[in-house]
Amino acid sequence: MTIGASREQGGAGRIRLGMVGGGQGAFIGAVHRIAARLDDQFDLVAGALSSDPARARASAADLGLATERSYGSFTEMAEAEAARPDGIEAVAIVAPNHVHAPVARAFLEAGIHVICDKPMTTSVTEAEALVELVHKTGKLFILTHNYTGYPMIRQARAMVGAGELGEIRLVQAEYPQDWLTERVELSGNKQAEWRTDPARAGSGGAIGDIGTHAYNLAAFVTGLEPEEVLAQLTTFVPGRQLDDDVQVLLRYAGGARGMLWASQVAVGNENGLKLRVYGTKGGLEWLQADPNYLWISRYGEPKQLFTRAGAAAWPEAARVSRVPSGHPEGYLEGFATIYAEAAQAIRAARSGLALGPEILFPTVEDGLAGMRFIAAAVASSKAGGTWVRVR
Amino acid sequence: MTIGASREQGGAGRIRLGMVGGGQGAFIGAVHRIAARLDDQFDLVAGALSSDPARARASAADLGLATERSYGSFTEMAEAEAARPDGIEAVAIVAPNHVHAPVARAFLEAGIHVICDKPMTTSVTEAEALVELVHKTGKLFILTHNYTGYPMIRQARAMVGAGELGEIRLVQAEYPQDWLTERVELSGNKQAEWRTDPARAGSGGAIGDIGTHAYNLAAFVTGLEPEEVLAQLTTFVPGRQLDDDVQVLLRYAGGARGMLWASQVAVGNENGLKLRVYGTKGGLEWLQADPNYLWISRYGEPKQLFTRAGAAAWPEAARVSRVPSGHPEGYLEGFATIYAEAAQAIRAARSGLALGPEILFPTVEDGLAGMRFIAAAVASSKAGGTWVRVR
Amino acid sequence: MTIGASREQGGAGRIRLGMVGGGQGAFIGAVHRIAARLDDQFDLVAGALSSDPARARASAADLGLATERSYGSFTEMAEAEAARPDGIEAVAIVAPNHVHAPVARAFLEAGIHVICDKPMTTSVTEAEALVELVHKTGKLFILTHNYTGYPMIRQARAMVGAGELGEIRLVQAEYPQDWLTERVELSGNKQAEWRTDPARAGSGGAIGDIGTHAYNLAAFVTGLEPEEVLAQLTTFVPGRQLDDDVQVLLRYAGGARGMLWASQVAVGNENGLKLRVYGTKGGLEWLQADPNYLWISRYGEPKQLFTRAGAAAWPEAARVSRVPSGHPEGYLEGFATIYAEAAQAIRAARSGLALGPEILFPTVEDGLAGMRFIAAAVASSKAGGTWVRVR
Amino acid sequence: MTIGASREQGGAGRIRLGMVGGGQGAFIGAVHRIAARLDDQFDLVAGALSSDPARARASAADLGLATERSYGSFTEMAEAEAARPDGIEAVAIVAPNHVHAPVARAFLEAGIHVICDKPMTTSVTEAEALVELVHKTGKLFILTHNYTGYPMIRQARAMVGAGELGEIRLVQAEYPQDWLTERVELSGNKQAEWRTDPARAGSGGAIGDIGTHAYNLAAFVTGLEPEEVLAQLTTFVPGRQLDDDVQVLLRYAGGARGMLWASQVAVGNENGLKLRVYGTKGGLEWLQADPNYLWISRYGEPKQLFTRAGAAAWPEAARVSRVPSGHPEGYLEGFATIYAEAAQAIRAARSGLALGPEILFPTVEDGLAGMRFIAAAVASSKAGGTWVRVR
Repeated sequence: MTIGASREQGGAGRIRLGMVGGGQGAFIGAVHRIAARLDDQFDLVAGALSSDPARARASAADLGLATERSYGSFTEMAEAEAARPDGIEAVAIVAPNHVHAPVARAFLEAGIHVICDKPMTTSVTEAEALVELVHKTGKLFILTHNYTGYPMIRQARAMVGAGELGEIRLVQAEYPQDWLTERVELSGNKQAEWRTDPARAGSGGAIGDIGTHAYNLAAFVTGLEPEEVLAQLTTFVPGRQLDDDVQVLLRYAGGARGMLWASQVAVGNENGLKLRVYGTKGGLEWLQADPNYLWISRYGEPKQLFTRAGAAAWPEAARVSRVPSGHPEGYLEGFATIYAEAAQAIRAARSGLALGPEILFPTVEDGLAGMRFIAAAVASSKAGGTWVRVR
Repeated sequence: MTIGASREQGGAGRIRLGMVGGGQGAFIGAVHRIAARLDDQFDLVAGALSSDPARARASAADLGLATERSYGSFTEMAEAEAARPDGIEAVAIVAPNHVHAPVARAFLEAGIHVICDKPMTTSVTEAEALVELVHKTGKLFILTHNYTGYPMIRQARAMVGAGELGEIRLVQAEYPQDWLTERVELSGNKQAEWRTDPARAGSGGAIGDIGTHAYNLAAFVTGLEPEEVLAQLTTFVPGRQLDDDVQVLLRYAGGARGMLWASQVAVGNENGLKLRVYGTKGGLEWLQADPNYLWISRYGEPKQLFTRAGAAAWPEAARVSRVPSGHPEGYLEGFATIYAEAAQAIRAARSGLALGPEILFPTVEDGLAGMRFIAAAVASSKAGGTWVRVR
Repeated sequence: MTIGASREQGGAGRIRLGMVGGGQGAFIGAVHRIAARLDDQFDLVAGALSSDPARARASAADLGLATERSYGSFTEMAEAEAARPDGIEAVAIVAPNHVHAPVARAFLEAGIHVICDKPMTTSVTEAEALVELVHKTGKLFILTHNYTGYPMIRQARAMVGAGELGEIRLVQAEYPQDWLTERVELSGNKQAEWRTDPARAGSGGAIGDIGTHAYNLAAFVTGLEPEEVLAQLTTFVPGRQLDDDVQVLLRYAGGARGMLWASQVAVGNENGLKLRVYGTKGGLEWLQADPNYLWISRYGEPKQLFTRAGAAAWPEAARVSRVPSGHPEGYLEGFATIYAEAAQAIRAARSGLALGPEILFPTVEDGLAGMRFIAAAVASSKAGGTWVRVR
Repeated sequence: MTIGASREQGGAGRIRLGMVGGGQGAFIGAVHRIAARLDDQFDLVAGALSSDPARARASAADLGLATERSYGSFTEMAEAEAARPDGIEAVAIVAPNHVHAPVARAFLEAGIHVICDKPMTTSVTEAEALVELVHKTGKLFILTHNYTGYPMIRQARAMVGAGELGEIRLVQAEYPQDWLTERVELSGNKQAEWRTDPARAGSGGAIGDIGTHAYNLAAFVTGLEPEEVLAQLTTFVPGRQLDDDVQVLLRYAGGARGMLWASQVAVGNENGLKLRVYGTKGGLEWLQADPNYLWISRYGEPKQLFTRAGAAAWPEAARVSRVPSGHPEGYLEGFATIYAEAAQAIRAARSGLALGPEILFPTVEDGLAGMRFIAAAVASSKAGGTWVRVR
């Protein structure tokens, strides 16, 4: 097992990156910046960091952006950067959900690659339009379903793909949290405010915020998308406008079955994303809170505990590892791997070379699949919990 | 914390017990006998141990039963024992599911208390008739949903009852196994043979064998029974006649929601019964494979790990413990607690005394609830996965 | 994997057992009785249950002993039982440590097999005399180092013996508890009273009570006894007369090294007995609180988790299992296995047959080894922590 | 709980950093660079990355260093950088152990702060001289005992300091690995080569490489340094020149006792650094492989599981956290915290301001303490395992 060679890049090798959203007080913007910086493959050189001009300026100063590249709006930024010889090659979109689509359109149309937070849009229609635009422009679109960057998730996907579990029968995905157990959106929690507001978050609460993560992870590992779902979305906290708990049954082509549970009111759970997959020959289990471990069971044999980059780790895990096994990597490293893969893809695009099959990242099509899942689940729940085709 | 005082009883204090089923080669019969013996409160003195006369005789000899009290049929046994001055006071029914109801009727009508394995019957109709008969005869009926005997389950129930978790919102129950991943019922596995045979097991496979356990456990701890369920029962192994996987959504009065999953084909799971309950103030988690632990979370506080009979264990757990904490008790001890509770109930019945509220065991009503759950789940699944009222 | 066939024995097959100690209020006596009863191989028919006559009588009544077989002293009991045609075949000694040796002598000399709690005696001299007497009388002597009865410990021993770990390099044993963190022996805790009293416990506190368990377990699994030890015994609680914490380094023939820690003041530990063994090819790890699991590591391969009676469990584990894997067995079952092995040995002795090599129990020689370990550790500590030969 | 505000710094706020060692093929150099980059507080602008000139040049190009600031030797670099107006403010020393002291001297004397990997030197004499030089020059010396950067270690230290555990009685530290189970230093493993070579690693193998980490961690959390130690250092792998296993007993002033075990041949352990501390009122347990958890036990209460930045995390943990609890942080983040603390200290030094008490990092005195521990342990072992004063 050899862990991934250093990904560090000399000055010219680095990719010029811009950011929309992520000003002072934001959470996910800082995460994207650390992720971009960790492997030294990007230079953040421009931004429209906030819709509030004063906050935008202050945030840009914090980050050491040149004054003239701190923009008042994303449209201005797209236009100006496209016109510069040293303009950004890619933009990271870290604004609330409802802004994702218009920002992405602006930059794609300006010929700039897009790295976008999830969920991709707030409607299937928007998502379909975005798919079309990506195809038309030929630019890259990387969706930061960051859990796909965890090394043991890479190994899980590789093992399923290699038939180690046999034919898949069961997919059990869950993502319990407890941070919305009480109505914290009324007491100044910014993250809670916009995530529980339909105008900014879209038609789904827990389902859009974390349900899609669980859904995407299951699809990434198994390669399966359900044909039909049945959902009950519940709002447990009185007065809240969006669902804070989601229970879904899934039916896959070929007869596999799944369950998915996402909750923001399950006291004692922080970010309990968990995936279990069972096939005719074996099973696997992975837990986001302890991401350096992957349990593999083969029928009739003792369970095996694979560790990231450890003895017998698969090359798919080792390739995206940075430190030896037993030294835990975490959330930021998994996120950074999405950026490292994006960097490879952007560099390949620069030179017109084909991308190796080992380079993996969620695409605009995955974003569309996520939106279709949300729409089907919301429709099912509104109809009282009926089976709805995912399309 | 004081652990339960010795339950041992001198000769006269012991209860005379008979057994139907449980001959050589059976599994659960031996478990019942160990459970009855462990606290020294029962004497096994009579049996109709097998429907095969030779096996019945040989089994009786193994157990040291007097020849004249090894019977060829349960009807003969009920009649003869009722007529003896030293006849059995209670009978343990450990035969396959389809025999439970007729055997129970025979002994109840003969004035003998019944300790019966689960599921109680193979139909709701049979179960309703049994409830009526128990009420009519006034005899005790103890259903061995043995997981209710685990000390930390007693504490979990007590904590929910005391409002420690607030109002219950979510119930997550699961019972994954993997022993039926392949079609072992064709290769001489006796346990698999009858459990996958509708004639002996009833209309439910996994749902009757383990789904009811998960269902009963959730009800025991939370005090809640669902109003509606939606189920998909799946037979994954080609050729098998009954379901080997069960996925259920549950709706409770008052708005609580639940999910239940039971599987016999989830590779890597042995007896993974797990219960999680979440309320407005807290959450709990318990795992049958590690039964001496109970996780309690209170919103905004660090998780607490309660141990059986350990520091701060609740008296409800300590009362049914035998050894100090850190010395694990397991499946047989939990099972024995059902028998110990039964012994207390039978002794109270002997003397006409009322039973203390701390004495707990699953009753004929719980058995009926389980049958109603099975029937509703089977009906829902047959209808393609629709909501069905549990009644 | 087939789990052990039923061990239940018809009336005549059972072994007539007596008990010295274990009257009302005692802990370990009740454990021995459950252990003897669990597999239905013994009948408890006689006892000298307490040195206090009134308590002895009351305890005998509780247990349903015949009045004439409840004795006022162990000498009287040994004599009377030896003279009866239906006298006891074996005696269980569950009195405090300082009584073990004289009681054992009395029964061995009366031709009665002995099952004795640990530590075997309070001095090496007593232990050596006992070894000699056992050899002279030819009776069985079973020392209840009960942890050797755990199925996964049986498998661990078998795997080491089969060379699965290669040549052993390191032995790490520990047994932390916390029940003596404060001076509870002054506040009515009977267990604490005699265990901290040199007159009843001998010269070792923690080292005799739990250190010997850890020592015996390591020896049972690895087959190794150290040549030299260096110990520091500490009494942390002011006023206490015996050590409540023990730290030991061990040197084995051939160059293997070990560490042993036993403590009664390590807050948060209940009965944290843990064994780790490392060799040139592999390692193992086992924890008493979760005894149904055995971790096996082979150099360069992913860790394997073996489960009791589960997939790929070794026959040595399955033979001493009672219920399927995933249904936890615990402390009492492990203890019962010592009794089940004793029963086999006693029955073989009845008939003059040789004992199969699979029948395992700690012997008088193991008891002597334990006493030598205690003596060496106490001597080392008194000398300020120097290397002392174990002999 | 509020997690640490963004640490990102605009261009001018960043600290100019140089590096000695860490060229192509090195492991720890890349780790230091990620750590420096993660919070955006340093610019790497100069280096003497390898003693091999070609490798030095190539490595500098990889990292985008200006050609004229890639030096052929550390002496040249110290001189040249000290002379530049934009010269480095701090140097990171990531070369093998025997080079630490001369490099540190050169930069300190040039007026440049030092960030140095551990163990600090290869002898106590060198270490003492370094302490003196640091005091004389008044420059900062930060030793990267990176485990002190883990948030839950910060909380552990704070809890001990606040008396939550009472008076400390026991310190149990261990650091098992297995990567040197076989003689991999002969088969091209560069890390193994220099770490098992006395000329480059110093007089200690496992004790210097990982034993000091365990020692430093225990001292950081408890505030205690032992007065006496007794050690046995063993070389298990034939032909190896340095110890690959270390067993140590420790005696603290005031009567506390400790055990420390570090091994490179314990098959199945990757980086199993673990710390347990017990006092008169409570205990704690922490495991490097799962660093986001801290177990706290209070006598007579259920165990509590604190999580990094989670409910009820102490501010000392939250201050050095970057992402919400449940999203694991790992080794690189802990390492980055050392750099973030260094940045605060360097900035304070720039402006002549005092450093807040919350800013923590291992110092040159900690490095000396580590060297004294190694020297005492080596001396004890050479003398056959005797008690040696640490001085």
